[in-house]
Amino acid sequence: MKPLLLTMGDAVGIGPETIVRAFAQGALHDCVVVGDIAVLRRAGAAMTAVLDSPAALAEVPPGCLPVLQTPQLPAGLASLPWGQMDARCGLAAAACIELAVRLTLAGQAAGIVTAPLHKEALAAAGVPYPGHTEMLQALAAATGQTAPPVRMMLANGELRVVLVTIHLSLRQAIEAVTFDAVLTTLRIAHAAGLGWGPAAPRLAVAGLNPHAGEGGLFGTEEQTIIGPAVAAARAEGINAIGPLAPDSVFMRARRGEFDAVIAMTHDHGLIPVKYLGVELGVNVTLGLPFVRTSPDHGTAFDIAGRGLADPSSLVAAVRMARALVSA
Amino acid sequence: MKPLLLTMGDAVGIGPETIVRAFAQGALHDCVVVGDIAVLRRAGAAMTAVLDSPAALAEVPPGCLPVLQTPQLPAGLASLPWGQMDARCGLAAAACIELAVRLTLAGQAAGIVTAPLHKEALAAAGVPYPGHTEMLQALAAATGQTAPPVRMMLANGELRVVLVTIHLSLRQAIEAVTFDAVLTTLRIAHAAGLGWGPAAPRLAVAGLNPHAGEGGLFGTEEQTIIGPAVAAARAEGINAIGPLAPDSVFMRARRGEFDAVIAMTHDHGLIPVKYLGVELGVNVTLGLPFVRTSPDHGTAFDIAGRGLADPSSLVAAVRMARALVSA
Repeated sequence: MKPLLLTMGDAVGIGPETIVRAFAQGALHDCVVVGDIAVLRRAGAAMTAVLDSPAALAEVPPGCLPVLQTPQLPAGLASLPWGQMDARCGLAAAACIELAVRLTLAGQAAGIVTAPLHKEALAAAGVPYPGHTEMLQALAAATGQTAPPVRMMLANGELRVVLVTIHLSLRQAIEAVTFDAVLTTLRIAHAAGLGWGPAAPRLAVAGLNPHAGEGGLFGTEEQTIIGPAVAAARAEGINAIGPLAPDSVFMRARRGEFDAVIAMTHDHGLIPVKYLGVELGVNVTLGLPFVRTSPDHGTAFDIAGRGLADPSSLVAAVRMARALVSA
Repeated sequence: MKPLLLTMGDAVGIGPETIVRAFAQGALHDCVVVGDIAVLRRAGAAMTAVLDSPAALAEVPPGCLPVLQTPQLPAGLASLPWGQMDARCGLAAAACIELAVRLTLAGQAAGIVTAPLHKEALAAAGVPYPGHTEMLQALAAATGQTAPPVRMMLANGELRVVLVTIHLSLRQAIEAVTFDAVLTTLRIAHAAGLGWGPAAPRLAVAGLNPHAGEGGLFGTEEQTIIGPAVAAARAEGINAIGPLAPDSVFMRARRGEFDAVIAMTHDHGLIPVKYLGVELGVNVTLGLPFVRTSPDHGTAFDIAGRGLADPSSLVAAVRMARALVSA
């Protein structure tokens, strides 16, 4: 099997140290890190092996962290202070992602797991994407392959949530909840969900407003946008129901009533996924031409470099990527 | 001790049957129901005692559900179909609340527990309040007493959430997140929280936007409104911190880092409170001149009258009202 590529994320966040720690636990046996060797050494990697291609993983001795050195990174990354936002780290994180996508689309890797980047650093570096998901989508398109619309899914052991909108202010997110956006999300979730079980996935659609609008008293988007999109999806054979009250639909999904919940906003969806512990969650990008997962946490600048970061979510992300690649 | 008053809620929802079931469990020994005797009989009350005042509770024989019959209710409530929205039920629910508030403000009861009403039925009856909280606030003001601003708190065994906005569309809620609204919420939560423990309550303020605005990339309300309100509260000696990312602050509070979370919107706050099960949650109105709690669920028209409704949240609401009255 081809290896998974694991991008190092922001050099002064917890990404590099979670990679080193996950490797020490034996959880990365089929992964190649795409990043900077000095950054990974500072994060605690005792022995490293610099590869010239993902396929060279087969020749790496046990106990050596396999690294593809991303070329032309800014100098001195490994001497920047931990947890201080820096444009150079944003630039480096983006360069690692670009390399990983290029290699994966060229057939040299099975999929990509991304350690967290810092969105302000990305913006400070002039990278024209607010986050991983948008960047991966654009890179997939730039190769000339068709780039279908993508959606972010967050999943843990008991809940899957697919988001209609992500990295927008709440005001902009409301504007971005359109008939097409909801219907497209349902189509992507349905296509992905066919791999989760024997039957058509049961997709619950959360409303946007309190009580899903309470019959129009607290907003009309359920009646004018979300309800019609659910009806259109059902007409295509998608097993969608809703819109349902946002404050109870996740609890119902947790109890097994639905296979996934479609959430209109970032926080409607992420609050329940993270509630029982971020270390359990995995971020999956649905709709890309390759498998991509990531841990469900950020750069955690407040604890970076202090030996406190928990690699569990990264390990879960690698495990889910492996499962999706094999599916 | 004076009794608690328990309003019956919407006559064709699950309110009446949860009352009857909680009574059968022995959980309502210090409560008087304010409602309609025929409705409660249809909901399963075998023996009822009609009281002329809350104080008459002392003379009610064991096993008899004590009821204050609300005067001038619409005729035929007990023969309306279960689970069908009806303006008469909205009118009756409002009349029960009015009577309960009048008796409590007159010193005849210790506090109020409200069974769920249906907001569309309330609106269809021409009641000019979107829900319980707003109605109770207005009734408190109408007596000539000062009616301080109120806030809804949702609490379960592991999380307390105080809401800045409640029954508004998400668009309107964003407009209602003002400096004054956030600061007032912090003052009310602080005052209430002094009763929760030995020290000043630790109040975490959730942001409005994804990642609390990510430094302004995803919205500016954190910088222009919420942050300044937190600073003003701290200057008053309130132990407030934030704004913090909405998607992780509730998890942190659940783990014990904070005593309560201030949420900007209805669903940011209610999604985590309800995630582990609505039957555990209690709604508390902070800031009223009397204690008021309610179960953290709605009328559940889909199961009303079928013997399926769980009285656990009502029982928890009565228990919490009793604790607050004694505090």
